[in-house]
Amino acid sequence: MTAPSALPWITLTTDFGHCGPYVGALKGVILSYWREARVVDITHEIPPQDIATAALVVADSTPYFPPGTIHVVVVDPGVGTDRALLYAEIGSWRYLAPDNGVLTLVYKKFGAQRVLRLTEPRFWRPQVSATFHGRDILAPVAAQLAQGLDPAQLGPPWPTLQLLDWPLPRLRPGEIVGQVICLDTFGNLITNVHREDLLRFARPEDFSQLEIELAGRKIRGIGATYGLAPPGQLVALLGSSDRLEIAVVCGSAAQVLGVGPGCPVILRR
Amino acid sequence: MTAPSALPWITLTTDFGHCGPYVGALKGVILSYWREARVVDITHEIPPQDIATAALVVADSTPYFPPGTIHVVVVDPGVGTDRALLYAEIGSWRYLAPDNGVLTLVYKKFGAQRVLRLTEPRFWRPQVSATFHGRDILAPVAAQLAQGLDPAQLGPPWPTLQLLDWPLPRLRPGEIVGQVICLDTFGNLITNVHREDLLRFARPEDFSQLEIELAGRKIRGIGATYGLAPPGQLVALLGSSDRLEIAVVCGSAAQVLGVGPGCPVILRR
Amino acid sequence: MTAPSALPWITLTTDFGHCGPYVGALKGVILSYWREARVVDITHEIPPQDIATAALVVADSTPYFPPGTIHVVVVDPGVGTDRALLYAEIGSWRYLAPDNGVLTLVYKKFGAQRVLRLTEPRFWRPQVSATFHGRDILAPVAAQLAQGLDPAQLGPPWPTLQLLDWPLPRLRPGEIVGQVICLDTFGNLITNVHREDLLRFARPEDFSQLEIELAGRKIRGIGATYGLAPPGQLVALLGSSDRLEIAVVCGSAAQVLGVGPGCPVILRR
Repeated sequence: MTAPSALPWITLTTDFGHCGPYVGALKGVILSYWREARVVDITHEIPPQDIATAALVVADSTPYFPPGTIHVVVVDPGVGTDRALLYAEIGSWRYLAPDNGVLTLVYKKFGAQRVLRLTEPRFWRPQVSATFHGRDILAPVAAQLAQGLDPAQLGPPWPTLQLLDWPLPRLRPGEIVGQVICLDTFGNLITNVHREDLLRFARPEDFSQLEIELAGRKIRGIGATYGLAPPGQLVALLGSSDRLEIAVVCGSAAQVLGVGPGCPVILRR
Repeated sequence: MTAPSALPWITLTTDFGHCGPYVGALKGVILSYWREARVVDITHEIPPQDIATAALVVADSTPYFPPGTIHVVVVDPGVGTDRALLYAEIGSWRYLAPDNGVLTLVYKKFGAQRVLRLTEPRFWRPQVSATFHGRDILAPVAAQLAQGLDPAQLGPPWPTLQLLDWPLPRLRPGEIVGQVICLDTFGNLITNVHREDLLRFARPEDFSQLEIELAGRKIRGIGATYGLAPPGQLVALLGSSDRLEIAVVCGSAAQVLGVGPGCPVILRR
Repeated sequence: MTAPSALPWITLTTDFGHCGPYVGALKGVILSYWREARVVDITHEIPPQDIATAALVVADSTPYFPPGTIHVVVVDPGVGTDRALLYAEIGSWRYLAPDNGVLTLVYKKFGAQRVLRLTEPRFWRPQVSATFHGRDILAPVAAQLAQGLDPAQLGPPWPTLQLLDWPLPRLRPGEIVGQVICLDTFGNLITNVHREDLLRFARPEDFSQLEIELAGRKIRGIGATYGLAPPGQLVALLGSSDRLEIAVVCGSAAQVLGVGPGCPVILRR
C-alpha cells in the first residue's frame, strides 16, 4: 500500500442514530486528537447492531473513496467483551472496526494486505469505557493514523478475520435461488443475487427474458431502471451496486409485498 | 456570473435516507475526483421521490449559501429514462439536478442565467449505471466544477427547464384561498400563501385581524411567533421563509388537525 | 480562557430534523458569513422542543471537542419571545444558545467563566425573522466568533443563566431512588443515577451485588457491558457517560418494559 498523496479523509459508519450524544462524542474525540482531521459521515443509521446491513453498506460505499481513506465502522454489539478491534488494509483503504463480520463483503471483494489487532493503549484515550470503544479507541487511532502514525505500532497481526456466513444464491438447472438480504430507504428489496451470478446463468441480452418469482408474484424480465414502468408496477432490476433488486415504481416493494430479509427469490430462464 | 472568490462549497440534497450506501457513495465519488472538495449536507431525507418538497427545500435553503456554491440535488424518480440532467446558473449559485421540477421555486424567484444539458460523458464516471446518476454523473461533474472546469464544456444549452405546476393561492373579494403544501419536522403545516400574497390583500398592521380557516377550525389573526400563545393552542404565523404556517404551540398541527398537503386554507379580512 | 491555537470548529445541535430547509439555511448563513468556517453536525434530531434531552446531549458530546470550539445549540421553543440568546464560556468551550436550560448539565459540571446576552444587531443578519433566530442571529455570530470577533462586543453580562430543575436521585438508607430521564437510539433507558451517586452508596467492587428494580422487574448487579449476557436479557450497566442504563441485550429495554422517561428506578444494597 503506497502512502496517500494528501491528507486522508476519515469516514464514519455507525448504528448510533441521531438522538443521542454518541455521534458528537466520536467526532469530538477525533478533532481533539487532531484539529485538522477531515471527517465525513457515511451513515449513523445502520439498524442497531445489524452487522449484515453494515457489511453491505461498507462494501457499497467505502470503495468509492480515495485511496488511503480511513473508514471507521462502529457497529459493535460485542463492545467490552473479548472480541478484537482491528486495523485492516483492504483494497486501497484502511478500516478500523470490531472483528465481528462488518468487513466481510469488502474483504471478499478486495482481499486484505494487512490485518492488525489494536492492542496498544498508548494510542487510546487514557480511560477506556466498557461500552464505547468507538469513542475511546477507534476515534483516537483514526486521528493519529490520519496524522501519519505508522500502523505497525498499533498491535500484532491478526490472522483470523471473522467473516459472516453470507447466504450465497444457489444455481440449479434452469434456476437461481437467492434471497432478500435487506431493504433500502425506498423499500426496495435488495437480494444476494449479483450480476456475476446472473452472468453464469444467462447472457446479458437475455436478462429481459428471465422470470423472477418472489412472495407468490412473478415478474417478467430484469428491467433497466425504475422509471420505465408505470407507477405501482412491480419490477426487477440490477441496482447501482449490481445486486438484483425488486422494486415498486414510485412505491415500496417491502410494503406492497409484505416481505423482508430472508424471503426467497427464484429466477428462471 | 463572476468567478467565485474562493473554493466553492458543494451541497447535497437527496432523498436517499441514511440506511443505505447511497450517501457514502455520492460523497466518496466527489472526494475521489477531488480530494480537496468541500462537501456539506443539506438533507438526505426528502421524502422518497417527492419533487415538490425537494423544490421547497431547495428554494428555502440553497440561497443562504455563498455565491458560486454548487448545489447537487438528487431527487430523481426518472433516473435512467430520457429525462435530462442539468447544470443551471440560478441567482448566484450553480445547480446540478435532473430536469424534473426540483428547481421550480428557486428559478421562479431568481431566474436562470444559463441552463445546460449534461451530455459529455468524458466528465462522468467511466461506467454509468442506469439507476444512480447522482453518483455516476452529478458527483464527478460537481467535483470538476469545484476545481474550475468551465461549465460550457458540459453540454449544450437547454431551453425548456421543466417547472412544477405549483398551486398558487387565489385572491377573491375579501378572501385568499390557499392550501397546505407540506409538513415540517415539527408537524407545522406549511402553506402556499406567501407574505407577498398577504401584502396584496391586507396591510401588515392588519395581519393580526385576519381570520384563518382550515379543517373546520378558525384562527384569529396571524401571530408573530410560536411562544406567545399557551401550549396546545392552534396558531397561524409567517414562518422563517415568509410562508404562512399553521402550528400547534409545543405540538403537531398535522396530528391535532389530522390534515396534510392539499388541505385548503382560507384567509378572510 | 486562552486564545484557541487554530481555527475553531463550529458544532450544530438542533431539533430541526432533516425534512426541511432549516439545517441547510443554518449552514448556508454560517458559510456565507465566512467561507472558511469549519462546521460539524452533532445532531439535528433532538426531539422537537425537548430541552432536557438537548441538555443531556450537549453535556455528553460537546466536552469531547477541542478547546475553543463554538457549540451552537438551537432547541428554542421560546423563539421570538423575550427569552435571551446567550454567549457562554463554559469549561474550555464557547456556547451560543437560547437561555432556556439547554446548558444546565454542562454548566453544572464545568461552571461558566462568562455569560453574555446577545444584544448587538450589527452582528446579526440585517433582517431577523421572529421564528428562526438560529439562522438570523446565532449562525452569523458563530461565524464571526470563529473569525476572531471579540465576544465582549456581543452584549452585556447576563447574570441569571436559566437552569432546568433536573431531578436528582435520592439516597435513602440502603437504597437510591432515581428515574429514567431519556431513551437512546437503541431503546436503552438512561437514568439520572450517575457513577458518583453510586460511589456514595457502594464500593465499585460491590456494584455487581446491587439489586436494581424498575417497572416491577428486578436485575441483579450492575454489569460491565452489553455483550456479556445472552440476547434478550435485561441488564443494568454504567453507560459511556457514567450514567446508569437499563438495557436489553440485542433488544430495546423501552419496548420490552414499556416504560419511558419518569419511570422510577430503585437500587438496593
